[in-house]
Amino acid sequence: DLWDICCELALGLPALSRVAICGGTHGNELSGVYLLRELQKSRQEEAPDSVALVTVMSNPRAVQQCRRYTETDLNRCFTDATLSSPISDRTPYEIVRAQELNALLGPKGSADAVDLVCDLHNTTANMGLCFISYSDCDWICLHICRHLQARASDSMEIGPQPHGVIRADIMGIMAEGVRLMLDWVCRFNSGEQFKGDKMEVYTLVRNVDYPRDPATHSIIAAIHPQLQDRDFCLLHHGDPLFLHFSGKTECYPWAEPLYPFFVNEGAYYEKGIALSLAHKNTVGIPPICVKSSRRN
Amino acid sequence: DLWDICCELALGLPALSRVAICGGTHGNELSGVYLLRELQKSRQEEAPDSVALVTVMSNPRAVQQCRRYTETDLNRCFTDATLSSPISDRTPYEIVRAQELNALLGPKGSADAVDLVCDLHNTTANMGLCFISYSDCDWICLHICRHLQARASDSMEIGPQPHGVIRADIMGIMAEGVRLMLDWVCRFNSGEQFKGDKMEVYTLVRNVDYPRDPATHSIIAAIHPQLQDRDFCLLHHGDPLFLHFSGKTECYPWAEPLYPFFVNEGAYYEKGIALSLAHKNTVGIPPICVKSSRRN
Repeated sequence: DLWDICCELALGLPALSRVAICGGTHGNELSGVYLLRELQKSRQEEAPDSVALVTVMSNPRAVQQCRRYTETDLNRCFTDATLSSPISDRTPYEIVRAQELNALLGPKGSADAVDLVCDLHNTTANMGLCFISYSDCDWICLHICRHLQARASDSMEIGPQPHGVIRADIMGIMAEGVRLMLDWVCRFNSGEQFKGDKMEVYTLVRNVDYPRDPATHSIIAAIHPQLQDRDFCLLHHGDPLFLHFSGKTECYPWAEPLYPFFVNEGAYYEKGIALSLAHKNTVGIPPICVKSSRRN
Repeated sequence: DLWDICCELALGLPALSRVAICGGTHGNELSGVYLLRELQKSRQEEAPDSVALVTVMSNPRAVQQCRRYTETDLNRCFTDATLSSPISDRTPYEIVRAQELNALLGPKGSADAVDLVCDLHNTTANMGLCFISYSDCDWICLHICRHLQARASDSMEIGPQPHGVIRADIMGIMAEGVRLMLDWVCRFNSGEQFKGDKMEVYTLVRNVDYPRDPATHSIIAAIHPQLQDRDFCLLHHGDPLFLHFSGKTECYPWAEPLYPFFVNEGAYYEKGIALSLAHKNTVGIPPICVKSSRRN
């Protein structure tokens, strides 16, 4: 069929000459913090020749305090507006730091920017080794994700991790993910052609907040035990969603079945997100290869 | 034998006229925070007649910020020295608050103090429903613990909880524990006699820190995957203790087997505790009954 024919024509994409690995964007997500420190110790020996690797501790002040952030969430500061906002004495630390990171790794969207940023996070949700991309047609990210899916050992068996805690198993799988990502980049830069494929991706439809007291805004229910730890398990109309502290069960109210993720992420209580809901889509990814050994 | 004879003589102890239930002593341990709010809504109807119940949100400022504490750990402020230290403008909030709590529930050790304090906590360690008492001859606490052991459903199946997160299952078992505690106090006050018994208790021997870099004091190893989540499982010489980020396994170095607990508690990284080690002891608890219906 048409798909098979398309797969024979590999799309040429520029080499990934400069790759950034960032840890500690959230200072209490410790796998990335400690993995980054290990990479900074060892990368001299291990960095593949075809890639210039930049390792960055994104929010050292939050890491120092073992908190998500000190004044505002750094991972919400990379909009064009925030990156270009004027700095004063009262500018939150994270906005200043976002502009520093943009100078170091960007400017975002410019020819001077690094070609790939791998930002390491943890979650208290049971999402396994999870790859988040802001586009379903970023072929580099999708090919890397497919590479990890095919090779990462038992990644989906890994449980959630509390913030402020290191679990050796989760740090191990994150280290394997980073190694496989660099392995893919190295193969790509050296001219290997990657076949086209179809992939399943989850696309955000909406976020759902906890039930709250209208007067105090305090939470009055927890994620239902039947939903807790069941990220990516399809929810149907009438399935339990919340268990109110009063004992009442609140059910999934929508007709359309959707997939839950970020179920009970600790850092999202303040953002008003108890869980997110997604469509599962199949995306066709084209075969790709490097267009040139020099930077485009 | 002698024990059986002793068991026929019930020890008379004063009634527990005033009981305090405290939540939010650590502001990000959310089961106690939300359970306390529920108790404060409903206690008018449910408080047993024979007990005057006081419910206290211990550290409201830390609860507000969803942090363990704002300036210093409140749960380390109840020493006689701290409770009697002079207050100035620069005194940490938690020391001021500890003195307020001592005025409300104490003074500690005085005849005016409440008869029992039940302080609700969570841990990221896999310790199940766990009862911590600072004495192995506090017969009231040990009898309440035995009451819970005999009646609490599947308490040891409950996993750890990240700080800053509510899990409905863990909140449910904590609610059951509080209900059983009040049930026991009510029975005790109304004259029920409780049999003597032998109980297994774990007594702290020493705390063990994470391996650290001597220069930076940074952690260089995580709890070994074979020890993670295995609280109260006996450790022998040579069992894996830590997995260094370098890949090296560090083993239990002592000849005497001991029981690990508080394995990988997130709040203890800053205290230099990776795990605690305990002896298991058998303690004989005497039969008890209330000495008098009036306060002693």
